[in-house]
Amino acid sequence: MKIILVGATGTIGRDLQQALATKHDLITASRHNADTKLDITQPDSIWEMFETVGKFDALVSATGHGVFASLPDLRTDDFYEGIKSKLMGQINLVLIGQHYINPGGSFTLTSGILADEPIRGGTSLSMINSALHGFTMAAATELENGARLNTVSPGLVEGSVATIGASFPGHNPVPMHRVVNAYIKSLESALTGQVLKVYS
Amino acid sequence: MKIILVGATGTIGRDLQQALATKHDLITASRHNADTKLDITQPDSIWEMFETVGKFDALVSATGHGVFASLPDLRTDDFYEGIKSKLMGQINLVLIGQHYINPGGSFTLTSGILADEPIRGGTSLSMINSALHGFTMAAATELENGARLNTVSPGLVEGSVATIGASFPGHNPVPMHRVVNAYIKSLESALTGQVLKVYS
Repeated sequence: MKIILVGATGTIGRDLQQALATKHDLITASRHNADTKLDITQPDSIWEMFETVGKFDALVSATGHGVFASLPDLRTDDFYEGIKSKLMGQINLVLIGQHYINPGGSFTLTSGILADEPIRGGTSLSMINSALHGFTMAAATELENGARLNTVSPGLVEGSVATIGASFPGHNPVPMHRVVNAYIKSLESALTGQVLKVYS
Repeated sequence: MKIILVGATGTIGRDLQQALATKHDLITASRHNADTKLDITQPDSIWEMFETVGKFDALVSATGHGVFASLPDLRTDDFYEGIKSKLMGQINLVLIGQHYINPGGSFTLTSGILADEPIRGGTSLSMINSALHGFTMAAATELENGARLNTVSPGLVEGSVATIGASFPGHNPVPMHRVVNAYIKSLESALTGQVLKVYS
């Protein structure tokens, strides 16, 4: 398959790249150090990326960020920072990519456990991840030509324990190979409209 | 209780106003025909409204819209129209209102059944309603001074069958008094962080 991997330089993206590169024609897309340049916060950049890459069989996105802050400190702009990146950045990959994807192709996005289990300071990410789940369920019913859409919702992954583990008290770190398997399941199964939860 | 009712002129808002006005000190807030002027798409307008109204015991929001269109036709801007209104408009009522609400007060927002059951053309609303559910679950854990937050998720309400019923094939219309009761449950119970589904 010709697969576009968005966010190949991230914690999950690095492992995904290793797992997919041997078997597939992989094209990485990021702001830096990738086969093709992409800033998911800019819809024009997404259009350009698809124009450059052309038709493709699958897109896997493991990218996007949001702002962590306690509720009394959270501002409207903090929410919009995550909306422009992790939420609408990924949604735009589907909205725009639907016009370039091959029949029977697939989109796989990334949300996270905060959709189901809030942590202190994580309200904007809980909102964003839940939004991605609703989008996935609904958009999958309207994609044309047999294109599929799923979202992987990882728990705290092992590779992130050192940097953000302290914010996830009591969370059992998820082994990276289980997270990678969820993306492979989305890519190679017939599933669509599913949230693949990898919560350990 | 001193209750701010946002969206009193809408389908649900009109019935809410009737049900709440006899028992409570009700202040209506809308763009037109209300006690106090409010445009929820403008954060400055929300700050002004709370400055004008001052401390309050409960805020009930039954307002906000999003764009309906089939997935191939949906554009980034269509999503942002709903994000600015039904999603961030209502989230801003909580973000800003948390600094004005009395101890033990409550917020009640409105989402909708598309969070759980997609309809054709409803992808952006499924996204928005799911986002409100994630926000509710998370923000409720961080509200201070005993303030509560719930969201009512109505199905197709009887009052909307004539205008939008054709877009909801097979949906059983929900009697308005059951929807009103969900808001009263949120207002007068000790529940917090809950999505009160009224799906008939």
